[in-house]
Formats: sequence, structure tokens, C-alpha cells
Amino acid sequence: MSEDQFLNGVNVTAVSNLIEQIKADPELGKSRWHLTNKWITCGQNLSRIESFFVANKEIPHKEPFELKADEPAALAGDDTGPNPVEHLLNALGYCLTTTLVYHAAARGIKIDELEAELEGDIDLRGFLGITNEVRRGYQNMSVKFKVKTDEENLDRLRALSRLSPVFDVTSNGTNVTVEIERK
Amino acid sequence: MSEDQFLNGVNVTAVSNLIEQIKADPELGKSRWHLTNKWITCGQNLSRIESFFVANKEIPHKEPFELKADEPAALAGDDTGPNPVEHLLNALGYCLTTTLVYHAAARGIKIDELEAELEGDIDLRGFLGITNEVRRGYQNMSVKFKVKTDEENLDRLRALSRLSPVFDVTSNGTNVTVEIERK
Repeated sequence: MSEDQFLNGVNVTAVSNLIEQIKADPELGKSRWHLTNKWITCGQNLSRIESFFVANKEIPHKEPFELKADEPAALAGDDTGPNPVEHLLNALGYCLTTTLVYHAAARGIKIDELEAELEGDIDLRGFLGITNEVRRGYQNMSVKFKVKTDEENLDRLRALSRLSPVFDVTSNGTNVTVEIERK
Repeated sequence: MSEDQFLNGVNVTAVSNLIEQIKADPELGKSRWHLTNKWITCGQNLSRIESFFVANKEIPHKEPFELKADEPAALAGDDTGPNPVEHLLNALGYCLTTTLVYHAAARGIKIDELEAELEGDIDLRGFLGITNEVRRGYQNMSVKFKVKTDEENLDRLRALSRLSPVFDVTSNGTNVTVEIERK
């Protein structure tokens, strides 16, 4: 029988073991995430995610994930999926939530409920090429969490949110390279 | 009968009209995107996207979208959805693709096929809090497009990719605020 410890639904024993393994061999910390995307028509395009590289091996997902994006009718699309900037907001919400839950578990902080409201502002004049005076992307992104936990945990949770990978990239940016070749 | 012009599946007439409206009244360019996220357990959480604010009004999606995130078993999850950093890569792919297709259409550039491979590297020692010497998020994100179009269009497409809102945020970062309050 497993004697693994769980908190917030997280197998804390497994996470602790993973951390110890990576401490002992930092090469195991290297991960690579990848997917393919295929344009359908207009604003519709489809991503497929099959596997990822973690702990020195390529690991298939249980089953491949397919996710769709589209634009709403107000932006000349068919509204068959969230649009790209909604997907970005989404990624930020997912990542902050998971970061809080995992790191709280590792520190013995019990979370009973966690929900968030996210929003962000974009001046479409940037994307539409009307002016260079406003940026293309979000001018700001804001995340408001409501958490059911002991009052004394709040400041620790605020500090832990800084460990989120997507918070890091959306706050600080990273090196993004785009190559376009003929098929 | 509509006399709208279409290219790449995009209603170029509608997009041109939108641009002219926003040029005439820059307030119409202000957009706000929002969603709610709810934690389920461990790495599982669910986002719900119902509406957005564009052109001075809140507009409902045809139907609400629900999207899920989870972690794979290698990261102590149940693998019931892409993980947050896969969702981020996803958002970048969607946005670059849509940006290329729309702006090409507006400039009379015909695209017959467009597909991309995306990948990014993360050193998990950052997220796991093992060291502060590596960042939490992607050290790099790379996007490789294959496009079926005339050779002469390639350089223009490379320039147009810079208009992508998610490319902007992932390259340059933005102002992200996180508030955590008790429920």
C-alpha cells in the first residue's frame, strides 16, 4: 500500500521525490514542450499536443490533445473557439492556479477552494496596424484570486505566485524566434 | 447579395470597415478580454470564457467556452488536459497564425496552407524553487512556419508576424498584477 502523502490533491511525496532527483542531477530539470498548429481558414486554427520531454525522456500524453482557436464575429471570425488573446489569459490563469496549489501542498498549506477572475486590456489599433503608438499585446493583465484557506496563509501564497512560469514569461518576456519558410 | 471581398477565408471588406471605424473613433479600439478560472484538484483547473468587450459593448460568445488544464503524470497530475506551459505555447501559435492570415488577406497576399511547429525549453529547477539562478518560465520559445504561398511573399509575412499581440507579450512582457484575497 502506498504511504504517499497528499495535500490539495497533490501527491506531495511524488513531488518531493522529483525535487530530490533533480537536485541530485540538474540535467533532469531540463524540459521541452512542443506542439503543432495547423491553419484551417480565416481565424480558425487547430493545435495538437502529443508528447513532451521531461526527465531525460520524451513522454506521450495519455491521449493527444487538440485545441482550437477562432475569432468572434465582431473580429470577422466564426466564433468556434476562444481567440488567441483569450487563450493567453487562460494560460496565465491555469499556471498561477497550479503553481499556488502545488507549492502550497509542498509547504503544508491547505487550500480548500481557489478561483480567479482574469482580465486584460488591448487597444486594437496596435494589432490592426492603425498606429505604432500603442502596443500590439495586452497593456495589462490582472488576476484576482479568491481562496478558501486560513488567513495566515495569504502572504505566503502571494509570494508563491511569483514561481509561476507563465507569470514569468508574461511579466518579463522571453526570447521568441519566428521562422517562416515555404512549404 | 453581399459584395464583400474574401481572401484566406477572411472577409476583407469587414476588416477594412472595422479599421476605418476605429480610425474615425479611436475609442472603438479599446478591447477587454476576461474569463473565470476554477480549481478542481491537484493540477486540474477549468476556465470559462463567456463574453468580451469590443467596440464599446460587451459581446457574448455564441456559446461559452470551457477549457481545462492539468499536469501529466510525470509532474504528479492526471493528464486530463494540456498543462499551463503547453497552453502558453498554444496561445502563441494561434496568435501568430491568425495575425499572418488576417494581415496577409488585408494586403492581398494569398496563403494556401500554413502550419507551424512550436517548442520551448524550461529548466524545471526554476519552477520547483531549487535554484534562483534559472528563470521560472521559458528560456526560449521557437516557432517554425511552413507556408504555401508565392516565394515573394515570405519577407512580407515575416514582417507581419511582428503585429501579433501574443508575440508582443511573450517577447516583451507586460504589466501583470496578481491579487489574492480570502473567499
